[in-house]
Amino acid sequence: MITTHQLQEDFTSGLNNFLSKYPESNLFGPIRYLLNLGGKRIRPLLALSVCNAEGSTSQEALPASLAVELFHNFTLMHDDIMDKAPLRRGMVTVHEKYNENAAILSGDALFTAAYQAIELASPEVMPQLLKLLNKTSMEVCEGQQLDLDFEEQKNVTEQMYLEMIRLKTSVLLASSCAMGAICAGASKERVELWYEFGENLGLAFQIQDDYLDTFGQQSSTGKKVGGDIIAGKKTFLLIHAMSVGEIPSTEGCSDDEKIAIIKSTMSSLGSDIAAKKLMKGYSENASKALDGLNLQLSTKSWFEELLFSVTERMS
Amino acid sequence: MITTHQLQEDFTSGLNNFLSKYPESNLFGPIRYLLNLGGKRIRPLLALSVCNAEGSTSQEALPASLAVELFHNFTLMHDDIMDKAPLRRGMVTVHEKYNENAAILSGDALFTAAYQAIELASPEVMPQLLKLLNKTSMEVCEGQQLDLDFEEQKNVTEQMYLEMIRLKTSVLLASSCAMGAICAGASKERVELWYEFGENLGLAFQIQDDYLDTFGQQSSTGKKVGGDIIAGKKTFLLIHAMSVGEIPSTEGCSDDEKIAIIKSTMSSLGSDIAAKKLMKGYSENASKALDGLNLQLSTKSWFEELLFSVTERMS
Repeated sequence: MITTHQLQEDFTSGLNNFLSKYPESNLFGPIRYLLNLGGKRIRPLLALSVCNAEGSTSQEALPASLAVELFHNFTLMHDDIMDKAPLRRGMVTVHEKYNENAAILSGDALFTAAYQAIELASPEVMPQLLKLLNKTSMEVCEGQQLDLDFEEQKNVTEQMYLEMIRLKTSVLLASSCAMGAICAGASKERVELWYEFGENLGLAFQIQDDYLDTFGQQSSTGKKVGGDIIAGKKTFLLIHAMSVGEIPSTEGCSDDEKIAIIKSTMSSLGSDIAAKKLMKGYSENASKALDGLNLQLSTKSWFEELLFSVTERMS
Repeated sequence: MITTHQLQEDFTSGLNNFLSKYPESNLFGPIRYLLNLGGKRIRPLLALSVCNAEGSTSQEALPASLAVELFHNFTLMHDDIMDKAPLRRGMVTVHEKYNENAAILSGDALFTAAYQAIELASPEVMPQLLKLLNKTSMEVCEGQQLDLDFEEQKNVTEQMYLEMIRLKTSVLLASSCAMGAICAGASKERVELWYEFGENLGLAFQIQDDYLDTFGQQSSTGKKVGGDIIAGKKTFLLIHAMSVGEIPSTEGCSDDEKIAIIKSTMSSLGSDIAAKKLMKGYSENASKALDGLNLQLSTKSWFEELLFSVTERMS
């Protein structure tokens, strides 16, 4: 198995090369700005590593890895407008740095660039990649729509919430894995197992995200704990707490008081433990998918470590 | 040659069938709303008619015709946000009827739907259609970016303006024609001639649009004459007038006075005649492309009539 560091280097040089063909214009300025902020690059890493694990060179999955990362950044650019988010990766968001029109239009160009990356795939796999990117894109839009809908909705159940994060977050991680397998010419069954692995990894990732926002340490996460509570966001923790008990009113309280009250309510109602349990379930599902793939021991370890790094992460 | 009416009916039923597979959700409500407002459907008509003219059944180009119409409507949904447009096709725009977030997100889903339409094409032509849609989409984004840039720019030349409308409007009409030819399995040379026809048709169309906005009759166009003048839009007419003479100040004037003053200045500077001459040139280029295609007489007449209806239209 090729090293993570090598995969990341391959991706970065592939991305820089891909972007260099676009002009230095107002349209591409915001795109370069956002992509240069970095990020974990987990999606391209999955596409490249799965392709490698399936016995092909990771280079075979470079077009797919570009497509998923460009697509992901397009969703960030548009979601940040919709969520009126001031910061992304610790820096000002595109619509704040430029303006809303720039974020809409450059987002559209970035979306197009994702499809242009698909063009570069070999003709045998290109139609399959296109179909999967299309399906994923539509699901991600549906997930974001549910997220917006939930802001207005009173009765959001755990099941509804989990379906929302599956669509908004997990399907793209799942597709990243599946695309890597497709690029290596893997069988339909193996592509599906990789999809399953990615989907469960994504669900575990998002639940851990919810958990850390409330129960993490600022010293580890680098951001103020309790952001979701202050924003009144319907996370898994809040939905769980509301379903098993009463949330006390925090009217007139300061932000810090609100965080303390809601956090202690969640703890006493077992919402933190429920989140951890749920995440463990997803993590086990992901492991089972790996088992089904009968990978070489060292390859399997690499993916288990990745899974471990997601579920046990403190930041 | 199949009749225009038949082509339009085929497209409408194809579109309804295509849309019926999407759920009745908040994400697709704005999409159905905009598409049900109708419009000229000129782009799908071009794709279907060119495919038919190239000796294939128009049905072969149905996926391409869906892609160009869905893509066009996606650009309208996002452009209307950027332009803060209150009306589209005489009805309230999506961002006004719903909200901006809905117009951004449903626009993204509509963009995805255009690519899903490409999936339906036969495997032999699908990669070519994908490439052309990608290239066109990027050019349309560049055109819209130039349009936004021009609002802030003082020295917009005729050449810059014509490049902007080529990108923003003409390339999609050109691609609609080219896609129709591709779907019929036409040669590279013929695809290029059809592209040329559509591109020049599109340029003529846009210049006539500029002309009618200032020199049309409200009784024919159905909208108040002089909208571009009041909005201070840098149309071909204004750019021409500014390049050959002086535009008098209209400070303190009423809207009707402004329109009268600018219109008479444009007339005395020959901007209306220059626009007509320019349009005639594009129209002749389009005719030459048709000549090069050596079409059957009745087929050629059909496209010449279409061209005539664009350049001689009063509305």
